[in-house]
Amino acid sequence: MQTELSKKLGVEHAIFGFTPFPAVAAAISRAGGFGVLGAVRYTAPDDLKRDLDWVEAHVGGAPYGLDVVMPAKKVEGVSEADVEAMIPETHRQFVQETLAKYGVPELADGEASGWRITGWMEQVARGQLDVAFDYPIRLLANALGSPPADVVARAHERNVLVAALAGSARHAVKHKEAGIDIVVAQGYEAGGHTGEIASMVLTPEVVDAVDPLPVLAAGGIGSGQQVAAALALGAQGVWLGSLWLTCTEADMSSPAVTRKLLAAGSGDTVRSRALTGKPARQLRTEWTDAWDDPAGPGTLPMPLQGLLVAEALTRIQKYEVAPLLGTPVGQIVGRMTSERSVQAVFDDLTRGFEQAVDRINRIAGRSGK
Amino acid sequence: MQTELSKKLGVEHAIFGFTPFPAVAAAISRAGGFGVLGAVRYTAPDDLKRDLDWVEAHVGGAPYGLDVVMPAKKVEGVSEADVEAMIPETHRQFVQETLAKYGVPELADGEASGWRITGWMEQVARGQLDVAFDYPIRLLANALGSPPADVVARAHERNVLVAALAGSARHAVKHKEAGIDIVVAQGYEAGGHTGEIASMVLTPEVVDAVDPLPVLAAGGIGSGQQVAAALALGAQGVWLGSLWLTCTEADMSSPAVTRKLLAAGSGDTVRSRALTGKPARQLRTEWTDAWDDPAGPGTLPMPLQGLLVAEALTRIQKYEVAPLLGTPVGQIVGRMTSERSVQAVFDDLTRGFEQAVDRINRIAGRSGK
Repeated sequence: MQTELSKKLGVEHAIFGFTPFPAVAAAISRAGGFGVLGAVRYTAPDDLKRDLDWVEAHVGGAPYGLDVVMPAKKVEGVSEADVEAMIPETHRQFVQETLAKYGVPELADGEASGWRITGWMEQVARGQLDVAFDYPIRLLANALGSPPADVVARAHERNVLVAALAGSARHAVKHKEAGIDIVVAQGYEAGGHTGEIASMVLTPEVVDAVDPLPVLAAGGIGSGQQVAAALALGAQGVWLGSLWLTCTEADMSSPAVTRKLLAAGSGDTVRSRALTGKPARQLRTEWTDAWDDPAGPGTLPMPLQGLLVAEALTRIQKYEVAPLLGTPVGQIVGRMTSERSVQAVFDDLTRGFEQAVDRINRIAGRSGK
Repeated sequence: MQTELSKKLGVEHAIFGFTPFPAVAAAISRAGGFGVLGAVRYTAPDDLKRDLDWVEAHVGGAPYGLDVVMPAKKVEGVSEADVEAMIPETHRQFVQETLAKYGVPELADGEASGWRITGWMEQVARGQLDVAFDYPIRLLANALGSPPADVVARAHERNVLVAALAGSARHAVKHKEAGIDIVVAQGYEAGGHTGEIASMVLTPEVVDAVDPLPVLAAGGIGSGQQVAAALALGAQGVWLGSLWLTCTEADMSSPAVTRKLLAAGSGDTVRSRALTGKPARQLRTEWTDAWDDPAGPGTLPMPLQGLLVAEALTRIQKYEVAPLLGTPVGQIVGRMTSERSVQAVFDDLTRGFEQAVDRINRIAGRSGK
């Protein structure tokens, strides 16, 4: 499965795998794809260094990349305390009432309260970059908006390609203007932050809008048929995130989340602002229902919402409070029905792709296999 | 572009075109596809008879089909007046206030007020069938739920295949159990009534769920690339509705609607209950915004909403009140940028399909053209 982009990056298959887990990233690259490690959870540069060392030691010389979160809007000079102060008391009460309703225990004194806003701030992302550029990463992806011009320049000096996610052709064109090299077209059905345009429509629209830049299709892809479909739509590769969450190499926060993912159907996700303040697809839970309920206070804008719910989500995860327990994931979750190794998942993708090509050739009346 | 289903129906290309316009249906079948005439607007059997006569005279012997609306829930024995009486006065007032706000003129005395609920009632659909079965239709599609068992039996006696639309694998399985022959998997991005699962995920899910029944992919398809993608996903053909609305043969209610369709981007539709009471994708307008506004009274359930807004929509269309003027259409509207003949659109689809197959073969390393 070779496109211009996969050849440029020296990978066997044009399958890009985004994952927060070093073991999954390394396994994807070893299998012949391109593993991309998500960096947002590394607030301490040393933690990122430790995990990149691990990837280096286990990737077998194959190429890999890093995904950072640099919000388009700068929040430099604003402290976490400043942002905390902007959260209305009614919203804090709603969090506590909802947790109390489900009997969610409190954290012990001094226990970490999970996600901090600092991970989303430019200075932290820049700290991650200082670490990452010491490693032979081949791709730097940004999950929110275009990266700053100096970051793009720094990446290009090091022969690192820069990718950015876009949920509309308009955003994709902005990325192109910012000098990025690859656009990830993130369809409505994708996990995490998404727009409203489905992959079937979005992919070719973005391909046309940023031509000749290569586009990776993201959203709804979990089988070789779907890989073939995305490539037929003009993508130069696919960008998969959800599919790896139930891999044996994934280090999910709780076994209960894995069980929920394995049991969920394609209709069991929701595009909700409950997690970050921007619409992000995730498992639908009584927690997302509470935030999406018109009778409730509703969600706050990014980054307030993420800060507001950070401790609550840590408690829900730690104590595995099933009705409230969720995770970002796409509609493809309906296909994630067993725990398998990354290699097994990857083999399914490439085998299914070949079968889909056979089928399309038969339909087209070409002499296929 | 040949699948088992297209061979069975004797058409050159596995492209099914749904349209309310006899001239479009005939042109699709003449071009080598399979035209399906939507019957919902024919409340008088003679009108349907007149248009089927026209199709027969212009289809050049090619096969074609009919699409009826038979709601899953029977409303037999309930008159339109009974249903009218269930509409709250607050909702009637909201309609009048909204029309007044935009200065929408009233209809003249005795002028038809557009859509009537009767078109959705089983006895009317049965009247349409009595007419249709006198014609050599090859396919009977039902847009809402599975058709009644006796209708399926009657179709099968006449060698007419029965199709039904489904927005989820669960609904598709119900159709299979009801004895239908073809499932149309209607993705989130499609125009008209849709579920929340995007085509990329829905198509293969429905294919697997109803195997060995053939599945047509609907939603987001307006180019040969998208046809190739849908077939790669396991569909035996594609079902296109939106794309024909801007064809020169289409008899749209107002030129202003056509202008709006040509100008709209993929992000200019909304899945709203404003039209019928069930979520249906359509152009986003100040009319849909008013109904979707949490500060308003909200929509009524089907069939009340359709009845409530029927006269208003007729007035908005007749007087071409631009901010309120909409029509059901899918996200593919962003690709509908010029008025062209059905044949020209069809040629683009088949040529684009061949190019997409070439491309996928190059990526797969097969000796393509």
